[in-house]
Amino acid sequence: MTATQQTTGRRRGRMAKRKRQPEAAFDAAWRQWRNPYPPIEQFSADEIEAIHRASMTVLSDIGVRVLSAEARRAFVAAGMTDAGDQVIRFDPDLVETLVAHAPPEVTLRGRGAGRDVTIGGNKVGVCTTGGTPNFSDMKHGRRPGTLAALDDLCRVAQAFDVIHMIGPFVEAQDVPPHLRHFAMTRSVLTLTDKVPFVFFRGTQAVADAYEMIRIAHGLSRDAFADTPVSYSVANSNSPLQLDNLMCRGIMDAASAGQLMVLTPFTLAGAMAPVTLAGALTLQNAEALAGLCLSQIVRPGAPVCYGSFTSNVDMKTGAPAFGTPEYTKAAFASGQLARRYGLPLRSSGVTASNAPDAQAAYEHQMSLWGALMGGTNLLLHGAGWLEGGLTASAEKFIIDIEQLQMFAELFKPVEVSNDTLGLEAIADVGHGGHFFGTQHTLDRFETAFYSPILSDWSNYESWSERGALTAADRAHRIFFQTVAAHEPPTLDPARLEEMDDFVARRTAEGGADIER
Amino acid sequence: MTATQQTTGRRRGRMAKRKRQPEAAFDAAWRQWRNPYPPIEQFSADEIEAIHRASMTVLSDIGVRVLSAEARRAFVAAGMTDAGDQVIRFDPDLVETLVAHAPPEVTLRGRGAGRDVTIGGNKVGVCTTGGTPNFSDMKHGRRPGTLAALDDLCRVAQAFDVIHMIGPFVEAQDVPPHLRHFAMTRSVLTLTDKVPFVFFRGTQAVADAYEMIRIAHGLSRDAFADTPVSYSVANSNSPLQLDNLMCRGIMDAASAGQLMVLTPFTLAGAMAPVTLAGALTLQNAEALAGLCLSQIVRPGAPVCYGSFTSNVDMKTGAPAFGTPEYTKAAFASGQLARRYGLPLRSSGVTASNAPDAQAAYEHQMSLWGALMGGTNLLLHGAGWLEGGLTASAEKFIIDIEQLQMFAELFKPVEVSNDTLGLEAIADVGHGGHFFGTQHTLDRFETAFYSPILSDWSNYESWSERGALTAADRAHRIFFQTVAAHEPPTLDPARLEEMDDFVARRTAEGGADIER
Repeated sequence: MTATQQTTGRRRGRMAKRKRQPEAAFDAAWRQWRNPYPPIEQFSADEIEAIHRASMTVLSDIGVRVLSAEARRAFVAAGMTDAGDQVIRFDPDLVETLVAHAPPEVTLRGRGAGRDVTIGGNKVGVCTTGGTPNFSDMKHGRRPGTLAALDDLCRVAQAFDVIHMIGPFVEAQDVPPHLRHFAMTRSVLTLTDKVPFVFFRGTQAVADAYEMIRIAHGLSRDAFADTPVSYSVANSNSPLQLDNLMCRGIMDAASAGQLMVLTPFTLAGAMAPVTLAGALTLQNAEALAGLCLSQIVRPGAPVCYGSFTSNVDMKTGAPAFGTPEYTKAAFASGQLARRYGLPLRSSGVTASNAPDAQAAYEHQMSLWGALMGGTNLLLHGAGWLEGGLTASAEKFIIDIEQLQMFAELFKPVEVSNDTLGLEAIADVGHGGHFFGTQHTLDRFETAFYSPILSDWSNYESWSERGALTAADRAHRIFFQTVAAHEPPTLDPARLEEMDDFVARRTAEGGADIER
Repeated sequence: MTATQQTTGRRRGRMAKRKRQPEAAFDAAWRQWRNPYPPIEQFSADEIEAIHRASMTVLSDIGVRVLSAEARRAFVAAGMTDAGDQVIRFDPDLVETLVAHAPPEVTLRGRGAGRDVTIGGNKVGVCTTGGTPNFSDMKHGRRPGTLAALDDLCRVAQAFDVIHMIGPFVEAQDVPPHLRHFAMTRSVLTLTDKVPFVFFRGTQAVADAYEMIRIAHGLSRDAFADTPVSYSVANSNSPLQLDNLMCRGIMDAASAGQLMVLTPFTLAGAMAPVTLAGALTLQNAEALAGLCLSQIVRPGAPVCYGSFTSNVDMKTGAPAFGTPEYTKAAFASGQLARRYGLPLRSSGVTASNAPDAQAAYEHQMSLWGALMGGTNLLLHGAGWLEGGLTASAEKFIIDIEQLQMFAELFKPVEVSNDTLGLEAIADVGHGGHFFGTQHTLDRFETAFYSPILSDWSNYESWSERGALTAADRAHRIFFQTVAAHEPPTLDPARLEEMDDFVARRTAEGGADIER
């Protein structure tokens, strides 16, 4: 089901049974976004070079503390310097050589037909939110994440074509940690046919998830190693530290040929310098360090340059998102990623505690920063609330509307004799209207974006229908979409093989979750 | 009072008495916006030329119906053709010659110190909402506009430096139409010291408003005619019609040397072709026609190219705002305005009926379209709701927050040895934090934008304080700002002269309001 049909059905009640709209045009533009606008640049080329050089100085003179002995050995074997006290110092030329191995564009194969997504160049993939401890909806409030909540989020994510990749949503805290990756991965693979996320929670858990995904895709082990079908995020422990778990994940993903996004968590004023130039210098140093490890393990391994630089509230230390500083950092990060020929990851974010106006304007500031900055991989595109502490049902739908608006914004506009409409203008003449002209009738069904959430009715009609806010309406749409979900096709033999694998691994005690 | 102090005081209760922050930096950047980003372009140069040529064909072959005999005479005297049935046909070369007289940049002198604002080039002026029949706030609901509501809106507009120009806000329906312009203009001139709006409601009413503004500024009649101190909007009656009232206004403003913004109301699918290229062709033709009239009356008269192209909901005919189509039209309009060397007007808009997430994301889509499209004059920057049928107290504050974020976004970022922060990064080392470093302490007070409305506290603190949404908080801020208002200085002699003038004109019967 395309998002158009889905949500027309959702929203318009009796109109749901009307004949289907043509799908093809929407699918192409919504499933693989192509950003037609040249990226907005925050800095001059000289300023970007200054940030680059400063980050190279950080890598060579200060270095990165690498907590994994295996990763330190890999760095040293590749020509970096062990400076003692777990610190690796980097040779700038070698950093550039290694990073140059990384592909500028990565195609992730989706499990379902038409679900492939390419990131890089002007192509953009969009992910849902992920990693939040809580789930909330306006009726039942905020509560710890459960597998049932994760399942509902999967169901809604499956319904909308502007979502290409599934984030880990909420922590399913009702499943024991050593088995959680089985349950979560199974939900994503059975309730959606989109590109799944793999958490870096130790080599065993990562290998389990990769194996489940390989089985669901029906790939041989060799084919899997050459086919990116999943993605993971490694966060450096800013400033300038890579812990054992992240080092392992970086190496595991590279070995498996699966996409790894290296995202420093550089909050200016807290884990990074208070100045934007300084925070970006630190971000760049950490991102390159982690990406180097990946390219040492497997030159050409698919990776993405992750940016998450934001700032804190200097009065309280609270993290802030979707701020003007965040937007500028996103613009600048695009310039840095392009300097190294890497795809860019950025995010849709807010610090708001409710699915309200603040959640929307902060999300928009981050979306515009990310997408106009040249982002190729948008994380947390839908559902993120409270600075990432909650996945919100209403925010999910509010964000889907905004994503669909961007997908429409990115569609090219035709300028031709036909669209300039001189005949129609002449026919209508002075003071008339265009409602009934043939020029309008030929095009009205697909001329404009048709929203799923926005209410354009007048105040009187809106009041009569209960004066529902966008969040009220989003609540209803979310749970209607959950109820309407139909699981995508999955070969029963593959499902059985996957379940047998999970049963065996569960009997073996699940995964040793590392911290 | 700067917005910073104002709102720090509003928001932080007991913190209001803390020592004042340095004003200068904020004032300069907030009072005169300079957009550092090159404009986003929707079309290629060839496509813009195609739209230009099509609009010239519209003007020469179809023409514009001009309902004012005086305006028709002016057009014919200048070399255009009377095609009969009130229709004027335009010579394309003459159109370009006339429009070339218009200045590319206009400085509007504000009544108060530091209230001048220049529009054109990369400089941007921001206006409040205007022209809505209703006022609403969440406590008292929606009701017809009154002078008291207009006064409150003036008070809040005065408090925030990101507002440079005062819109006509709500219709003061408790004042009789023939006296309303006196009351409204007096409110704006006594409660604010920013650039006022003049409604085109007939030559007499316009002359009255200009006289009041002239007196408040203490200008001689000659000086007034050479000093833009006010602005007006003329909407063409799309498609292709200029009514008597607008023709009069265009000529009155040109004669008086006051800024006139010519804005076609081209809703694609209703008053304009359903295609974006066609709607822009019509917008361009109508804008140039009206601007020509101004330049015929007074070559070099200050004008602005107005864009308002949006689309309707094709199912209901309801106007839609802040849509992807709106954003694209804003980008394209910037290209057209720049082609003619004219400042561009665009708007912050939404069709939402509540100050909710929809109001925020539609407003953002329109702000980004306008500002990244190269807008020089942002109308309806704060307070517009319901597609312009209501001025909302809460939306006003929600929008002010977004405007302040843009003013901060537009501030340049320094890249220097100092801001790259290598010393700070070396000092903090691996896994530390930057809270207490000298590099942070030296900068933390002004490093980041400090919001007036956004709540970045954690969920628990936010819940304890009543779980207020952005709209709830905005309501409180609006009325606290009203209460804290102090009228700006106005020479008592000028006030007396203005009041004497109003008394005399009232005794004469006020203005003959034309329709």
